[in-house]
Amino acid sequence: MTKKELEELKIEAYDKAIYDKIQKNFDSIAKPIDGLGDFEKIICKIGACIRDEKVDISNKALVIMCSDNGVVVNGVSQTDKSVTKAVAALMGENKSSVCIMAKNLGLNIKVVDIGIDTDEKLYNLIDKKVAKGTKDILVDNAMSEEECMQAINAGIDIVKQCKEEGVKIIATGEMGIGNTTTSTACLAALTAVKVDKIVGRGAGLTDEAFSLKQAVIEGALRFHDYGIRKANDFLSAFDALKDLGGFDIAGLTGVFIGGAIYHIPVVIDGVISAVAALFAERLVNGSSSYMIPSHSGREQGTLIALNELSLKPFINGNMALGEGTGAIMIYPLLDMVLNLYNQGIDFGDTNISQYERYEAKS
Amino acid sequence: MTKKELEELKIEAYDKAIYDKIQKNFDSIAKPIDGLGDFEKIICKIGACIRDEKVDISNKALVIMCSDNGVVVNGVSQTDKSVTKAVAALMGENKSSVCIMAKNLGLNIKVVDIGIDTDEKLYNLIDKKVAKGTKDILVDNAMSEEECMQAINAGIDIVKQCKEEGVKIIATGEMGIGNTTTSTACLAALTAVKVDKIVGRGAGLTDEAFSLKQAVIEGALRFHDYGIRKANDFLSAFDALKDLGGFDIAGLTGVFIGGAIYHIPVVIDGVISAVAALFAERLVNGSSSYMIPSHSGREQGTLIALNELSLKPFINGNMALGEGTGAIMIYPLLDMVLNLYNQGIDFGDTNISQYERYEAKS
Repeated sequence: MTKKELEELKIEAYDKAIYDKIQKNFDSIAKPIDGLGDFEKIICKIGACIRDEKVDISNKALVIMCSDNGVVVNGVSQTDKSVTKAVAALMGENKSSVCIMAKNLGLNIKVVDIGIDTDEKLYNLIDKKVAKGTKDILVDNAMSEEECMQAINAGIDIVKQCKEEGVKIIATGEMGIGNTTTSTACLAALTAVKVDKIVGRGAGLTDEAFSLKQAVIEGALRFHDYGIRKANDFLSAFDALKDLGGFDIAGLTGVFIGGAIYHIPVVIDGVISAVAALFAERLVNGSSSYMIPSHSGREQGTLIALNELSLKPFINGNMALGEGTGAIMIYPLLDMVLNLYNQGIDFGDTNISQYERYEAKS
Repeated sequence: MTKKELEELKIEAYDKAIYDKIQKNFDSIAKPIDGLGDFEKIICKIGACIRDEKVDISNKALVIMCSDNGVVVNGVSQTDKSVTKAVAALMGENKSSVCIMAKNLGLNIKVVDIGIDTDEKLYNLIDKKVAKGTKDILVDNAMSEEECMQAINAGIDIVKQCKEEGVKIIATGEMGIGNTTTSTACLAALTAVKVDKIVGRGAGLTDEAFSLKQAVIEGALRFHDYGIRKANDFLSAFDALKDLGGFDIAGLTGVFIGGAIYHIPVVIDGVISAVAALFAERLVNGSSSYMIPSHSGREQGTLIALNELSLKPFINGNMALGEGTGAIMIYPLLDMVLNLYNQGIDFGDTNISQYERYEAKS
């Protein structure tokens, strides 16, 4: 897809008739109306996205984008960038944190090298490498326009592959030392929220390193002239992504757009993923119709981005691990609610009279 | 146990040395320090409660207390009290909402008839019936002192039985038409928070019925003289429970106290369960050391009660179903975190240097 084609892309909204049908089915189950609250609504949305009244999402995926960030030369992380490659390699061997947490979920896990700083082909990783890491956003554009489109297209391609494999829902994850710095810079550019209201300690920073990280992000925003304007149209959002982003963020942006194209709901993880989701919505209006929130995360940016997307997280664990660990936590909860949806007892099979849907006026 | 023995009961706190050991084990796993945030802390707490560094909670239970409430004669619910018995019967057949949601969790489910208004012995229910429902709290004490102690003892007995069966964690649930009315009245008495800040629509009320419910609760508080005082010592908490409570609430209070006695962590569900947890802490100081929060629920009272206990829920689903449906949702999440705890890769087995624990000053 070219930049021009991306700009002109139109998204078909989820199927409202199926949404309403699923809600009606929920109301026929012997329980209070809206008893499972927002979990019922999200099942309606997922079914409407995949156009399936039965909401069969047994085929679930996790897509993890891995890449390095030039900005780490400024000392914004506790560890050096070699950790990106080391953890990505563990992912390929199904041994990283998220892989072990997901053990019993039967997920289709796709680990993507979209820009790790190595010439090595890591075992079991999908090679979509755009370059060996981005440039330092403090003094340069993170990537060129062509690189940015290449990363977005890589994300869309992965969703196309998922579609061909029958995947019905995708959780997002990432691995990239320095990516809470890039995503925070992007979020500030996208929302004009001040950096000190967004920046967090990532994987754990001392007070000194934390101050440095904030200064680097503010410096990058000044360098790219994002001090005062809010990047909320296609062109300025695209520029913010290529100036301040990472290949992981751009790749995940592609995954969210791909979900909207191929009618596969995509689960948002923490701040990096949430910022990618916001990019997707700014670049291709209506993409958020296919987005599923999961957790709130420790980085304040997650909630700021979710709020811009009018999405509310289900899980509050104060988590800051990445890899998609928060996103996949929504999966067993959805399965529990779907058990009830598909196997719950109808009022008709009990001697209980059906509850009535009542919209409160006050 | 007599009322006097209950008043003098001392709880042994959870084992802090085991808590610290588990935290140290988490820190050795190749992930950021505190990466799974509050989920790591709750695993530490659970392990400290059951005195097991491995935190083996594969043997999980759900205890559901079912009973009727005299206050329903005032029209505070959408349905009549026959629904209590009907749903309890479904529970016995493993067909109610929570049973179907729990299908793949392998739970030990104990459904307790602690006061259903029927002479029938329901299939598969544990018979701990105190009486066929409480009296109407608007004009009478819900129960006598003896009945209150009988219900609390029933809850403690159930936990003793769980202990004998090797259960390592218990989720709480309830079924009882009218029990958001009784629990709201109790919470107002326990906290002196105004009724209009607590009362919710239960399983779904029209605006008219909602106003009536609020008036009934305020009337009951006036009748029992709880307008101005806060029931925060043993005797006044006990009185609030017997004057305004239900057998389900008193039974669950016993379950929380039993958890503290037998060193089994007990998961709080929605408002009824949370109010029972608060009663347990007020009656037997230190019980909260064995309590595990789960979700925030739709009824505002849940968060008010959790806040009094200094507990923060993990799940926000705006749920209002009862039966323990929110409480059991924490189970698969704990299992995912325990996968990582028990099978995560140590830094020592990687070429990644261990992160350092750093307590931020600012």
